[in-house]
Amino acid sequence: MNPVKVGIAGLGTVGSGTVNILRRNADEIARRVGRPIEIAHIGARRDNDSCDVTGVRISRDVMEVARDPDIDILVELIGGTTTARELVLTAISNGKHVVTANKALIAEHGNEIFAAAHAKGVDVAFEAAVAGGVPILKALGEGLAANRIKWIAGIINGTGNFILTEMRDKGRSFSDVLAEAQALGYAEADPTFDVEGIDAAHKLTILASIAFGIPLQFSKVYTEGISGLTSEDITAAEQFGYRIKHLGIAKDTGNGIELRVHPTLIPQSVLLASVNGVMNAVMVDGDAVGPTLFYGAGAGAGPTGSAVVADIIEMGRALTIEHDQRVPYLGFHSDVLSEEPVLPMDQVVCPFYMRLHVQDRTGVLADITRILSQHSISIEAMFQKDVDDDQPVPIMLMTHAVREQDMNKALAEIAALDAVLDDIVRIRVELLKA
Amino acid sequence: MNPVKVGIAGLGTVGSGTVNILRRNADEIARRVGRPIEIAHIGARRDNDSCDVTGVRISRDVMEVARDPDIDILVELIGGTTTARELVLTAISNGKHVVTANKALIAEHGNEIFAAAHAKGVDVAFEAAVAGGVPILKALGEGLAANRIKWIAGIINGTGNFILTEMRDKGRSFSDVLAEAQALGYAEADPTFDVEGIDAAHKLTILASIAFGIPLQFSKVYTEGISGLTSEDITAAEQFGYRIKHLGIAKDTGNGIELRVHPTLIPQSVLLASVNGVMNAVMVDGDAVGPTLFYGAGAGAGPTGSAVVADIIEMGRALTIEHDQRVPYLGFHSDVLSEEPVLPMDQVVCPFYMRLHVQDRTGVLADITRILSQHSISIEAMFQKDVDDDQPVPIMLMTHAVREQDMNKALAEIAALDAVLDDIVRIRVELLKA
Repeated sequence: MNPVKVGIAGLGTVGSGTVNILRRNADEIARRVGRPIEIAHIGARRDNDSCDVTGVRISRDVMEVARDPDIDILVELIGGTTTARELVLTAISNGKHVVTANKALIAEHGNEIFAAAHAKGVDVAFEAAVAGGVPILKALGEGLAANRIKWIAGIINGTGNFILTEMRDKGRSFSDVLAEAQALGYAEADPTFDVEGIDAAHKLTILASIAFGIPLQFSKVYTEGISGLTSEDITAAEQFGYRIKHLGIAKDTGNGIELRVHPTLIPQSVLLASVNGVMNAVMVDGDAVGPTLFYGAGAGAGPTGSAVVADIIEMGRALTIEHDQRVPYLGFHSDVLSEEPVLPMDQVVCPFYMRLHVQDRTGVLADITRILSQHSISIEAMFQKDVDDDQPVPIMLMTHAVREQDMNKALAEIAALDAVLDDIVRIRVELLKA
Repeated sequence: MNPVKVGIAGLGTVGSGTVNILRRNADEIARRVGRPIEIAHIGARRDNDSCDVTGVRISRDVMEVARDPDIDILVELIGGTTTARELVLTAISNGKHVVTANKALIAEHGNEIFAAAHAKGVDVAFEAAVAGGVPILKALGEGLAANRIKWIAGIINGTGNFILTEMRDKGRSFSDVLAEAQALGYAEADPTFDVEGIDAAHKLTILASIAFGIPLQFSKVYTEGISGLTSEDITAAEQFGYRIKHLGIAKDTGNGIELRVHPTLIPQSVLLASVNGVMNAVMVDGDAVGPTLFYGAGAGAGPTGSAVVADIIEMGRALTIEHDQRVPYLGFHSDVLSEEPVLPMDQVVCPFYMRLHVQDRTGVLADITRILSQHSISIEAMFQKDVDDDQPVPIMLMTHAVREQDMNKALAEIAALDAVLDDIVRIRVELLKA
């Protein structure tokens, strides 16, 4: 099967992330697309050591990629709106499909770009432009397509959310946290785009168009930043039962669309209030589905590259329209399903919570910990409840990670102890660490 | 443009929800698909007053729908696995595409159904089978397709999550909450499928197949229910900093796949721990994107119908393969973008938080409340901070919903008061109520 040939313009953080994902997961991706993805040409002013481009044609002039007759898809990752616009329009006029992560380009020049692409019969995809790796555009345009969307409210700038989270958690000032964010690389030297809401306004423009079927209208977004917020306000909001988040909000009022980016108090009880640090999340309320939320990392080589490559995969699947090239039933094609075994439960490894009742008698705890230790089970935390004399004593404990079969053996021995009274409760623990 | 002709088998909660969405949002949906969706035939043993089926052919034998030469897509919403399997295989052998919300059918007979569909070159879609209206299958199979999925952890049974939430929030017993859930209609008279994890195991089977590209293997899922949990354990878990959730977990360990449903302690700090009540959420960790979370209602006429109709829309788009029938750039076709206006910010209506500093002088508060009242702004809550004598007094207040232009006028008048000292802080409030 012929590979899908991809040309990548721009080899910065997202460009190298995209190259790394396409190479690392090449087999998995080919299983999903039904044919391999080949990086045929890269345009970049300079090399980037963080990815391997062995064997790939390299041009210093990105326009050469857009004109290369050998590529099917141009991936625009140079950023900015001037050269990027010219690059994308050149690729389209040469009949290439386009994938871009450039929110400013789509929000400000999308209408023009789509018109050119429509005239040429090529596709333009930009999932990476909003909320990084979170497939929110696909969710709005396809997954929730049955709904009349009522409103969207999103934490769509990770820098701003990091700053607000730190201000709240540690009572720090805006300027203090901003300086740290700059040192950590979360914020640019010129933080205006992030903290004054321009970046969020670009993303909101795109979200609103897909939600409501309206043209891109970046110039009409009301935009207010977070640089004026004080920790005093954040504390007062908490006292009222609210949390302050920098939201992009798009709402269909019935007599017009609201498009606005500004600091917003939201009830502490809604899930969006618990989205902290650099993470992004978009809440969508549809008339059929009700409230939904889509959460993940909004920036960085991996997350943004994940969305860029998802768009490449979708275009690869669509390039040929035979049945076998459509999205397969299980996402993977049926003749290449993997035969990886399902593990028996006794081979699962995780920490455990345990609760047991014992007679209040010397040596019981020693017996229990000895049995655990004989099965190489170590205890992370434990407490005993105070009870009246002669009552059974409840003991609760948390173990470190242990193989299920070892835990089962230890439990059988513990249950056999005379001093252990009731059925032992044991519940598995998942730390959900990424 | 010819309509897409749909036959619906089953007119219970989800069937009538599907009919209602297709009718209510017919214009919006036709804008997304590029052609109208027509309900051409309904098969149901009895009528259902909660939807309007005027003008639709009705059969009492669902098999007649599967054999109707006039329909393009059969929508299976009868539930169960015996008649449903026969119905779906009949539809496929008659060359129809199939949409189903039936998790048991796909988890237990999906491999057979996909093989039959593959042989006929038709599609089978089942987004509604997992997590109701949350487009998690599309996210896994398409939005996150660039990733090697490391693990999935999901709250994928709303009944179970409602019970655990109530047990935790109110210290109630399992049996007490179950009885209430049955009275509220969240739990079936026979609650086994929900509380013993069988329903979750069906859904996990499907999630794991799409995440890892493995065949459906329901019989290999380890399943443990929540009926043995006590509020004592839930409290102890909290003391350790954890929350108990009934999770479906699928994990690629490198030497096998873990597939398991059981009560699980998770750190209170992870977003999944804040998913309460009947809501569903699925956390997915991909090697490129990192941790993501997809949240929404997992059951009910609207949410499940939302996913069923999304599948119908996707099939409608794919039925013709011309450029204009592909998913359009903005989800809607470019020649039917709406001209709905973007509202100017001064017409936005929302509650406000305000903070101002005033001189400690009689009558200041009366002046402020008078001005607010003259602009029809009512106060929901207010507090004043105690300060030393002769210091400015900070006043924080929350208003009810007010139009931005009225708030701006009131603020200008308040700022002009002699006793009001500093710049007034005002931050908009969003209740995020669905």
